[in-house]
Amino acid sequence: MAPVGPRSGDAIFASVERVNAELFTLTYGAIVRQLLTDLEEVEEVNKQLDQMGYNIGIRLIDEFLAKSNVSRCVDFKETAEVIAKVGFKMFLGVTASVTNWDAEGTCCSIVLEDNPLVDFVELPDTCQGLYYCNILSGVIRGALEMVSMKTEVTWVRDMLRGDDVFELQVKLLKQVPEEYPYKDDE
Amino acid sequence: MAPVGPRSGDAIFASVERVNAELFTLTYGAIVRQLLTDLEEVEEVNKQLDQMGYNIGIRLIDEFLAKSNVSRCVDFKETAEVIAKVGFKMFLGVTASVTNWDAEGTCCSIVLEDNPLVDFVELPDTCQGLYYCNILSGVIRGALEMVSMKTEVTWVRDMLRGDDVFELQVKLLKQVPEEYPYKDDE
Repeated sequence: MAPVGPRSGDAIFASVERVNAELFTLTYGAIVRQLLTDLEEVEEVNKQLDQMGYNIGIRLIDEFLAKSNVSRCVDFKETAEVIAKVGFKMFLGVTASVTNWDAEGTCCSIVLEDNPLVDFVELPDTCQGLYYCNILSGVIRGALEMVSMKTEVTWVRDMLRGDDVFELQVKLLKQVPEEYPYKDDE
Repeated sequence: MAPVGPRSGDAIFASVERVNAELFTLTYGAIVRQLLTDLEEVEEVNKQLDQMGYNIGIRLIDEFLAKSNVSRCVDFKETAEVIAKVGFKMFLGVTASVTNWDAEGTCCSIVLEDNPLVDFVELPDTCQGLYYCNILSGVIRGALEMVSMKTEVTWVRDMLRGDDVFELQVKLLKQVPEEYPYKDDE
C-alpha cells in the first residue's frame, strides 16, 4: 500500500473538535492570574507555566501523531518545520515560520505573528519579568521529548514585551535513541 | 431597517475563531490540577473554579452579544433557552437542553450530554467532592449578572460522579433593573 502522506495543518484543523478561541484565551488568562496570586514570584510563575505546558505536550503529541499522519521526521530541520506549519495550525489555528538556523542545524527560531493566547492581554508593570505564553515553550519541549528529542526552548522576542513578533528559540540538546514512552496495549 | 434576527449557534460557532478542543481540555485539566495542589481542600477548589468562571463570564457576555445578534430576552425562560442552544454551541461547540422548569418560571435545569471539559478525565478517590466543571457554573452566573440577572447555579448531576448527564440548576434570584455595566465609548 502506498504510504499516506502527511495532511496539511489547515485540513487537520478543519477536521478536529474545536472550542471558541476567546473562551480559551480567557481561560488561559485565568490560569496565569491564579498562578501570579498563588506563587507571587514571577519567576516561579514562568516555571509553573512551562511545567504545565510540558505535561500537556507529552499528551498532545499522541493527538498530533494520530491526526496528522506525520511519521518520523528525517531530521531536526524537518521536525521544526512540522511544528511550525502543522502543529501550531492544528492546535491554535495559526501558522508559524522557522528561521535563524545555526550552522549545525540544531538550533532555530519559531516565529509567531498571531497568537490567540494574548488577545486583549496587557501586562501590568509588576509583571514585567513574566513570560506570559510560557506554556507554549513547555508544550513543545514535552511533545519533542516524547519523540526522543531533548530540547531547550526559550523566548527571544515577545509581543507583550514590545517586540513585533513572538520568537521561540528551540535548541536540540540530545537526540536519544528511539524508544516508545510506553508499550502498546496489543 | 428590519431588525436582524438572532443567528443559530451552529452558524456563529462556524464563524468564530477557534482552537483545538483537546488543547483546551488539557489546559483546563492543568488548572484544576494546579488548584488541587495549591489549595488542598476540594471545597476551596470548587469555589476558585466558580470564581474563575465568573470572571470569564462577565467578559464573555460581550463576545456573545456581539456575535449572536441576540437582543434582550423577553423573560428568564427565553434566556435559559438561548444559553443552552446558542451559548453552549458558540463557546464549547455542544448543544444543551433546558428542562425541569418550576411553576414560577424562575428555576430550570440545563442538561449537557456532551462536555469537552471532561474528555479523558477520571477523578481519583481523593477528589470525590470536586465539581470538576465548576468553571461553567461560574461563567453562566457571571454572564447573566452582566445582563441584570442575579442567579444561583448549582450542579444536580455530574457524569464524573457517575450520573448519565451533566445537569446544572439555574435559579433566578433577582432581576435587577437594566443598567449597563459600563458606558458606551460614544
